[in-house]
Amino acid sequence: MKFARLGAIGHETPTLLVDGIHYDVSSVTPDIDGAFLSSDGPAAVRAAFEADALPVLENADALRIGAPIARPSAVICIGMNYAAHAAESGSLPPEIPIMFLKTPNTVVGPNDTVEIPRGSEKTDWEVELGIVIGKRASYLDSPEESMDHIAGFVSANDVSERDFQMAVSGGQWSKGKCAPGFNPTGPWLVTPDEVDHQNLQLKSWVNGEIRQDSNTADQIFNVKHVIWHLSQYLALEPGDLVLTGTPEGVALSGRFPYLAAGDVCEIEIEGLGRQRQQFIAHEKSN
Amino acid sequence: MKFARLGAIGHETPTLLVDGIHYDVSSVTPDIDGAFLSSDGPAAVRAAFEADALPVLENADALRIGAPIARPSAVICIGMNYAAHAAESGSLPPEIPIMFLKTPNTVVGPNDTVEIPRGSEKTDWEVELGIVIGKRASYLDSPEESMDHIAGFVSANDVSERDFQMAVSGGQWSKGKCAPGFNPTGPWLVTPDEVDHQNLQLKSWVNGEIRQDSNTADQIFNVKHVIWHLSQYLALEPGDLVLTGTPEGVALSGRFPYLAAGDVCEIEIEGLGRQRQQFIAHEKSN
Repeated sequence: MKFARLGAIGHETPTLLVDGIHYDVSSVTPDIDGAFLSSDGPAAVRAAFEADALPVLENADALRIGAPIARPSAVICIGMNYAAHAAESGSLPPEIPIMFLKTPNTVVGPNDTVEIPRGSEKTDWEVELGIVIGKRASYLDSPEESMDHIAGFVSANDVSERDFQMAVSGGQWSKGKCAPGFNPTGPWLVTPDEVDHQNLQLKSWVNGEIRQDSNTADQIFNVKHVIWHLSQYLALEPGDLVLTGTPEGVALSGRFPYLAAGDVCEIEIEGLGRQRQQFIAHEKSN
Repeated sequence: MKFARLGAIGHETPTLLVDGIHYDVSSVTPDIDGAFLSSDGPAAVRAAFEADALPVLENADALRIGAPIARPSAVICIGMNYAAHAAESGSLPPEIPIMFLKTPNTVVGPNDTVEIPRGSEKTDWEVELGIVIGKRASYLDSPEESMDHIAGFVSANDVSERDFQMAVSGGQWSKGKCAPGFNPTGPWLVTPDEVDHQNLQLKSWVNGEIRQDSNTADQIFNVKHVIWHLSQYLALEPGDLVLTGTPEGVALSGRFPYLAAGDVCEIEIEGLGRQRQQFIAHEKSN
């Protein structure tokens, strides 16, 4: 199944997407969130769809696409999870997953405009496979247990400001990962049965020119390993978003310019959908 | 004013504490959260109290003390913000605030039992002055603007696992900061008018022996600077918790043993109240 959330910010309608048609699932759940995902909500939606009980959402194409999940309790990220990206960043491949966090208020719709932060000269893109947690995960005994805790997968852009992340941070990356709008997510939450999650092509473009073009098969630590590993250090909650790292081809490599006002960034993951963000200059408004 | 939340986990009653008596404020607000703090809720509580409209909460002394704020959208931490603690950690004092994050699900009551994580040998305490945000803060123009965005202050224990934080982390500290229960908070949220927040003694004890004994006057980056600085990199939201760093006297210094099952940790900040946590061994339960 593919879930989406369509409508104005804070007023998204949850939908089930089947053959290009959005069905309104708000009779089953008020939102695509942890409570829905952890309570057999997806099965209830499937049953309602098969019973022809879900109305088509009218004018869906005219609506903004929101992030396909409500604001999570945490956004947990894995750093340097593709060997070629570690190399372009000047690092050796890690021997253990590197974890850092984004604030959950960075999560926005896949096509929302993104502000380049005030004072930024190094705003960068990072296409990443995102995992959405379906069931609390704490101290899993093995990577094999992980799939039971995964509700689905999403396309995500882990937007990053490299000077904020590394030059003025004392080495703690989060300062460059949390600016407003720095986590375009979606367009869809796709259940695990619909994708071969460890064999998905993931790509990014800037102004139509290809930047990243790799495959989740190249991850150093795969999805099952990541969830098992993280669960030893924190409790993953239903609805949480885990970003699994980006492959080579970002501006940090020195091969491409950083994002400037007016640039358009696109990212796409096979089976999970495509995003398109215009980047604009910061305007003071508080 | 002093706010508290009393009752079982997930079922806390919001209260106003005056002269040792807890008044039930649930007729004014369902919780002490961002919506309450950003909407003149505290002023409404004061008016209700002065109108004698708040009932006394019966048997308050028999109730569990919860964190004095609902789960925040983010917990933002400042590292190495006292020179003597930077030195005991083997670091120079930072020239710019170092920011890292804890997951919001670490926030628990001030006296709740804390599990030592599975596999931990280096669980450590950190008494810290916590700031609770009252109004969204983004791109503040100067530190002088910060106080307008602060709802109050709390005692907090930024519990840390040093091997998770530094030995198996690739240098990103969050892995050692997010275990369940790792952020005892409270007992009270105290409004800024009640404390001289830059001149508060803060202390910790383990099994009754003093460990930390410093003053917020010794912070390298003061409260106003911290909020202004963070607002350049992320949007602080109402109800968010900002921890301002710990002074010297933690186990990481090598002067004291790490926490073991059965140990009791206490922390206290002048005017903000005292916490007492028993640490216990991890028991697998998921």
